[in-house]
Formats: sequence, C-alpha cells, structure tokens
Amino acid sequence: MEKLDMLYQGKAKKMYATDDPDVLWVEYMNQATAFNGEKKEQIAGKGNLNNHITSVIFDLLKARGVDSHFIKRISDTEQLVKKMDMFPLEIIMRNTAAGSFAKRYGVEEGTPLKKPILEFCLKSDPLNDPFINDDGIVALGLATEEELAEISRIARAVNDGLKDIFSKIDVQLVDFKIEEGKTSDGTILLADEITPDTCRLWDLKDKSGKIEHLDKDLFRRDLGNIIPAYEEIYGRLLKLAEAEGIERAE
Amino acid sequence: MEKLDMLYQGKAKKMYATDDPDVLWVEYMNQATAFNGEKKEQIAGKGNLNNHITSVIFDLLKARGVDSHFIKRISDTEQLVKKMDMFPLEIIMRNTAAGSFAKRYGVEEGTPLKKPILEFCLKSDPLNDPFINDDGIVALGLATEEELAEISRIARAVNDGLKDIFSKIDVQLVDFKIEEGKTSDGTILLADEITPDTCRLWDLKDKSGKIEHLDKDLFRRDLGNIIPAYEEIYGRLLKLAEAEGIERAE
Repeated sequence: MEKLDMLYQGKAKKMYATDDPDVLWVEYMNQATAFNGEKKEQIAGKGNLNNHITSVIFDLLKARGVDSHFIKRISDTEQLVKKMDMFPLEIIMRNTAAGSFAKRYGVEEGTPLKKPILEFCLKSDPLNDPFINDDGIVALGLATEEELAEISRIARAVNDGLKDIFSKIDVQLVDFKIEEGKTSDGTILLADEITPDTCRLWDLKDKSGKIEHLDKDLFRRDLGNIIPAYEEIYGRLLKLAEAEGIERAE
Repeated sequence: MEKLDMLYQGKAKKMYATDDPDVLWVEYMNQATAFNGEKKEQIAGKGNLNNHITSVIFDLLKARGVDSHFIKRISDTEQLVKKMDMFPLEIIMRNTAAGSFAKRYGVEEGTPLKKPILEFCLKSDPLNDPFINDDGIVALGLATEEELAEISRIARAVNDGLKDIFSKIDVQLVDFKIEEGKTSDGTILLADEITPDTCRLWDLKDKSGKIEHLDKDLFRRDLGNIIPAYEEIYGRLLKLAEAEGIERAE
C-alpha cells in the first residue's frame, strides 16, 4: 500500500489517498480542539493513543457484529480505512444527560435518560454544527428516508455494543459522537473514530461520588491532563480484547 | 357561562377560569411580541383581528375533519375553549425554508423543502425555547411515545388542512406554530391559536417577484403595519367560509 496525496486535514486527523481507490491512509495528530476549534493545543502522545484506542474499539465492535470502515492499524499513529462517501452529519447518542444536552434543556449533568437519545447535527463549521431532526435531514437532501433509517439503526447498534464494552471495563458510557458514510458499493458503515475525544466516559471504579472524567472534558473544562486518562482507557480496553481473545487487525 | 379568575397571561392572550371546570375564557390582547419578548408593542385592533381569524380557521379546519380546543367566539376579542393539559412544546410545521430554519442551515428563504418538516421546541422562556427532537421529548418525559405519535399525526393533519385552506385564498403557507394538549378525558387536540402571528403567509396574488408578507414578519422585521395585512387575511378567510357554507361557532 502506497501513501499518496493528502486529501483532507481535520481537527485531529489527516487523510491521505492510497494506490487503492477504495482505501484511505489516516494519520492521528496530537492536536486537541474544543468549542468548534476555538480552544486548541498540541498534546504529545494523543495521536498515538487515539489511533490505538479506536483500533481496539473497532475490533471489539466487530466481534459484536458491528462493522466499520476500519481495515487495520499500520503504525503507532496510522491506520488504513475504507474510503467512504460521508454523510454531512454528526451522529450523537446519549445515555445520560451531559454537556450541550444538559445545558440546552436545563437538566443536571448525570441525570439518567428514560431512553437513549439519538441526535444529529449538520456538519458545518460556519453554521456551528446546528442540531437537525429527521425531517430536516430528508427535506434538505442530506440522506434519503431509507438511508436515515439505516444510519439510525447502526447508531443504536454501536451504542448497544459500546455500552457492553464499557460496562465490562467499569466505565459509564455517557454519550458519544460518530460519523457514518457509504462505501463504493453503497453499504452504510460506521466511520471516523471512537476515542475519549468523541465519547464521554466516566470512571465507575471511582467511588468518591464526584464525576471522574476519562475523556476530552478534562481538556475542554481544564480539569487536568488527558494522557493518563486516555492511557487508563486504553489499558482496560486492551485487557478486555485479550480476555475475549478477539482478532486484532494490525 | 361566568368569567372567573385569570389563570395565565401569555404574550398575546389572557386565560380565565369559568364556572365550568372544562372550559376556559380567552381574551386576545393587542400586544405584539417578537424575539422571545425582547421586541414588544401595542397594536390597536390586533386582538380583535386575531380572535376573529383563529375562530374562522378553527371552523374551516373542523369542516376538514381536524378538531381543536375551540368552542365558540363570544365577543370581538374573546372566545371559549376547552381546558387542556398542555404539552410544553412549540410544534412547528414548515413547507418552505424561512425564518430560523433558513438561518440555522444556511438555506435561502423561500427554498422549497423536499417534504414538510415537523419540528419541536421545548417551551421555556429562560432556555429560549430550545429545539428538541422526538427522542429528547420522550427521554425527558414531556410526552410518551404514543402521545408523541398522536401529536405528530395531528400536526401533519393541521398542515394538510391549512395548506388546502390557504391555497384556496391565494396565500402560500410557508410555516406555522401550534400547540397541543389533552382534554380531561385524555383526547389530544390542537389548541392555542392559528393567526398571522403564528403562521408565515405569503401573498400569491402579488406578482412583483418579491415576498409579500401577510404575517407577523411585518412587525418582526419592521416591514410595515400588520393591521391591513391581517385584515386582508381575515377578509379572504371569511369569504371562503361563506362560500363553503360552513357552520360558524359564534
């Protein structure tokens, strides 16, 4: 596999073409951002950790029947993924009220929700990623009715898989953001990354009664260094993958 | 019927108890507000017009099989309605991109939508009526899954009815906001008002190529006096009701 031109640089990753038109080469960067890029910092080791974390999570999900764009990890900071035609949507699943949801509706962070909430935002930096509902997505032609049903089914399956994974490593999965796209044959798949940058993860081993964040809220809210928390998540996930004897793509 | 204590004063109406526990006495005020009450003005004749307009619209909708809380108009500015247990939701239907929708998604006002969009906002002045989706409504316990299905069915039926009514009087129904509630026997019904305060109505008789607003955008955007526009809407609606020979509740 040969790495060709850079196609796109996001806030946390660079994507390159390869000599296979269906495969992209992804490089995880050390950059951390929050508030639509207003807060920005280089954090040594973050790219390495997130590349490892998302790889083991994609493998753990695959073992639970949830496929993704992930092909294999090829270095500490790089992986190969299927090239996708991405839906311009941030797909958010919430199991507990937190973050923008808690603020928007005046609900205390940590309030359990009567059912998992699936939310969509239109991916647009100039519009500040506005919240959009199902009718809006179809009416603006961002996905068809049928595609949206499949996108939603996958999001709920990812939530079920992740809840199972994180409960086994004593971590509360509060909420997370994913993206999805279509492969060249039209299959809709989970894409992007699943890391403590994109999930709210609270430590259930901590019995202090306070919320122990193992995620990007440490950076977003100036609560401490993210690296030990991300290492803790990676260590627990790796132990789970070993205990389950799952096949690793690397 | 005896008018008793005032129960509630909103931005455009006062609601009073009556000697019948299932009936409220509504008084339409001359106050016009926009931007969550930041812009406010007294406009002589508005209460009178809106009381007449919403009454004839409720009658026209009833003739189309869509029932509401409306009992009858009892004076120029007053009407009797069924007492309802209201859902804390602003229910918005959109047929054409305009207003907050156009701004939120960067779509030009007047862009046709691929399908009518049903949106909900949580009614809350301190939270500035935040947008909420179906999962959020159920998860926060604002309505059950079954209630929400019925609320949505009614909103789409109101849209179908209003589109038919306004097309017959050469007015484009761009979008509108309604509220719904439950009567004492648990029936979910259309409530609140349907007026040029709560609908975007564009004149199809105008052939200038510019948008001719016959609604509260005249006030919201400082485009002119609302009274002649509201009188125009009322005149056309009354003529339609007479042509259709529908039963009037007054």
